Amino acid sequence: MIAEIISIGNELLNGNTVNSNATFIAKCLHESGVSVTFSQTVRDDPSAIKSALHLALERAEIVLMTGGLGPTHDDITKVAVSEYFDRKLIFKEDLYQRMRNMFEKRGIAMPEINRSQAYVPEDAELMNNPVGTAPGLIFRRARKYTFVMPGVPREMRAMLEDTVIPLLRTECPDCRVAVNIFRSTGIAESAIYEKLEKDLREFSSYEIAFLPRFTGVDLRVIRTAADMDDQEKFDRFRRMLSQHMSDYIYSEDNTELEEVLGRLLSERKESVAVAESLTGGLIQDKITNISGSSLYFMGGVVAYSNEAKEKLLMVKKKTLENHGAVSDEVAAEMAIGIQRQFQTDLGISTTGIAGPTGSTASKPIGLVYIGVAYHSKVNTRRFQFGTDREINKQRAAQAALEMARRVILEINA
Amino acid sequence: MIAEIISIGNELLNGNTVNSNATFIAKCLHESGVSVTFSQTVRDDPSAIKSALHLALERAEIVLMTGGLGPTHDDITKVAVSEYFDRKLIFKEDLYQRMRNMFEKRGIAMPEINRSQAYVPEDAELMNNPVGTAPGLIFRRARKYTFVMPGVPREMRAMLEDTVIPLLRTECPDCRVAVNIFRSTGIAESAIYEKLEKDLREFSSYEIAFLPRFTGVDLRVIRTAADMDDQEKFDRFRRMLSQHMSDYIYSEDNTELEEVLGRLLSERKESVAVAESLTGGLIQDKITNISGSSLYFMGGVVAYSNEAKEKLLMVKKKTLENHGAVSDEVAAEMAIGIQRQFQTDLGISTTGIAGPTGSTASKPIGLVYIGVAYHSKVNTRRFQFGTDREINKQRAAQAALEMARRVILEINA
Repeated sequence: MIAEIISIGNELLNGNTVNSNATFIAKCLHESGVSVTFSQTVRDDPSAIKSALHLALERAEIVLMTGGLGPTHDDITKVAVSEYFDRKLIFKEDLYQRMRNMFEKRGIAMPEINRSQAYVPEDAELMNNPVGTAPGLIFRRARKYTFVMPGVPREMRAMLEDTVIPLLRTECPDCRVAVNIFRSTGIAESAIYEKLEKDLREFSSYEIAFLPRFTGVDLRVIRTAADMDDQEKFDRFRRMLSQHMSDYIYSEDNTELEEVLGRLLSERKESVAVAESLTGGLIQDKITNISGSSLYFMGGVVAYSNEAKEKLLMVKKKTLENHGAVSDEVAAEMAIGIQRQFQTDLGISTTGIAGPTGSTASKPIGLVYIGVAYHSKVNTRRFQFGTDREINKQRAAQAALEMARRVILEINA
Repeated sequence: MIAEIISIGNELLNGNTVNSNATFIAKCLHESGVSVTFSQTVRDDPSAIKSALHLALERAEIVLMTGGLGPTHDDITKVAVSEYFDRKLIFKEDLYQRMRNMFEKRGIAMPEINRSQAYVPEDAELMNNPVGTAPGLIFRRARKYTFVMPGVPREMRAMLEDTVIPLLRTECPDCRVAVNIFRSTGIAESAIYEKLEKDLREFSSYEIAFLPRFTGVDLRVIRTAADMDDQEKFDRFRRMLSQHMSDYIYSEDNTELEEVLGRLLSERKESVAVAESLTGGLIQDKITNISGSSLYFMGGVVAYSNEAKEKLLMVKKKTLENHGAVSDEVAAEMAIGIQRQFQTDLGISTTGIAGPTGSTASKPIGLVYIGVAYHSKVNTRRFQFGTDREINKQRAAQAALEMARRVILEINA
């Protein structure tokens, strides 16, 4: 089954609102085995809505429209679509009463403007709106479905999940798919591709996408019904992936690295503290985004100045003088210092030049040293990132978390 | 001028990635006086790309395409668009060398697969990619422009801002608009609307949008050419705004609160240190995102445990026992403690319950105390936020920065 999404609203085309509705609809359909081939976004303009619908019905079996069902003057979707399908709008007394009851329950008198929402196309099927006043509409023509839903995200989501998806599942029982996400870091998209290219041929029936982020590359694998029952093939795929990339893949279940590290620490009943210079608090911010992190994260220090590195992290004055703050040696002393200060199993440190200023002849922007002290051992590593301050912070934070993961799991860098 | 956006990528139509690129492009164009009337999203499929481009060129003067310029097998935009415009791809030695140098700088050998990115359409104008390997492309035909940009957001953004927008400004000098962003925090969208509603009538020719974020509401004011020369009217508008909202507006030049605070400190040659509990490093991360922050930001401590609060922030054991870690009294001692520890003019502290767990009968999720020590004075304030962990961190960080701004400027809360 082929589907197309039409999103309606000026706010989407002025850049005021991110079109998260289209993403949500696409995700739900994709996970139900329905393929979305096009998505259109149009203004609150009847002729634009009609021409988008016409085009969509030419190339898709299912059209999902969202937006413009509210009571105000710029909500013109219902009228435009009804005109397109040549249906009259008629007043529904029962709908009107239902809306009045909804407002009554909230203790507000229904504004007269909402009366327009009780007009619906003749013979149209209505979709219940469990959380709002505007009903959804279903038009069937020549074995094709057009679903018209509100633009308010929670109303649209409820309608999609309660009515649209169940209806499509009934229409297409064979449409189910399986989705797996393998997250990697420390290896470029192109290098992954080179490693896997040859072996991927065997799995050409899998849909495999490389999704790059600042912090690494996600591999998304989608298997359709035909492949889903062949578990042996998928096991072969995972072995192949593991053979080439086991050191780089940190999660197979859609979790972020900070959560993976948190789980490792929880399992071992171990704790962590962090000493940050160039990352400026970002690593700790990431760690504390995970609910329950207070069980293993004791705290840390952001030491931007040399004085703070000496006073709070016990970095030796001599080390700073001899090697400079951005050095292997200081990263090591910071990691050990924070481990001692907080008496944790693991100590993580970062020092570097975030940019865009602050470079010297021997120390360019993007130069970063990361230290990981774990029990009685300490590892350090040098990285050379780019020139963008915030991206350097992101990359250094991810590299530090990954180094900690590897040290705990005894994976060689 | 009328523009249309074409976003390319299966990940967008599978619901894996939110199409933030389309929003960013729409916003930039809108703020340059160019109207986006349609936006299409298509798969990594040559015929879909070509038919979308054909349709766009029929109804718009400017087409902006993004996505599918990477080096892997599913990156087929360049080939599809070159075929559409009937241009051959030729190998550019200088481009190839530039790419090799980029990889060399990062200390990695360029994967052979990237070689394909050195092929560009004959006679095409190239757009410099300051942060990646794939160049952008410009096609001109019958006074219409087609811009082809990468899908990686930071590459697309740099190219749009560096090349596309300046070119459009040259092509359409009358499209110019003036955009002003007034950033506010600590006041709800509906409360702003109530305050301003009556006085806004005089400025009906201004396009005024209220853009809510977790951290506050931005007021975006767009004036077209006709209004731009009437400076007296805009001064009147600013006076009106100031009259109702001067305490809530922290910036008028598109800067974030952490930058505003940084400027205040720089002007005064003063310094800051931060003690974070529930915000877990987020405040320091924000402060250090500002280039040059090392001049006024000395560092700080993330003290998740009571021990850390005692040891590194000199919070008294008795205060923790009598009032609990989430209290007015502890916030005050943390702010004073970090100010002393780093010997700064300003000390900021946060303590609270981020959620989703950790509440007690008297201390619900979302309860936050913020402390600001400035010279010899200390202020604290209680906030009650919601139940979402990350949003609570964001709101608490913003509230803390705003409290510091107000204390320095002697604005009453």
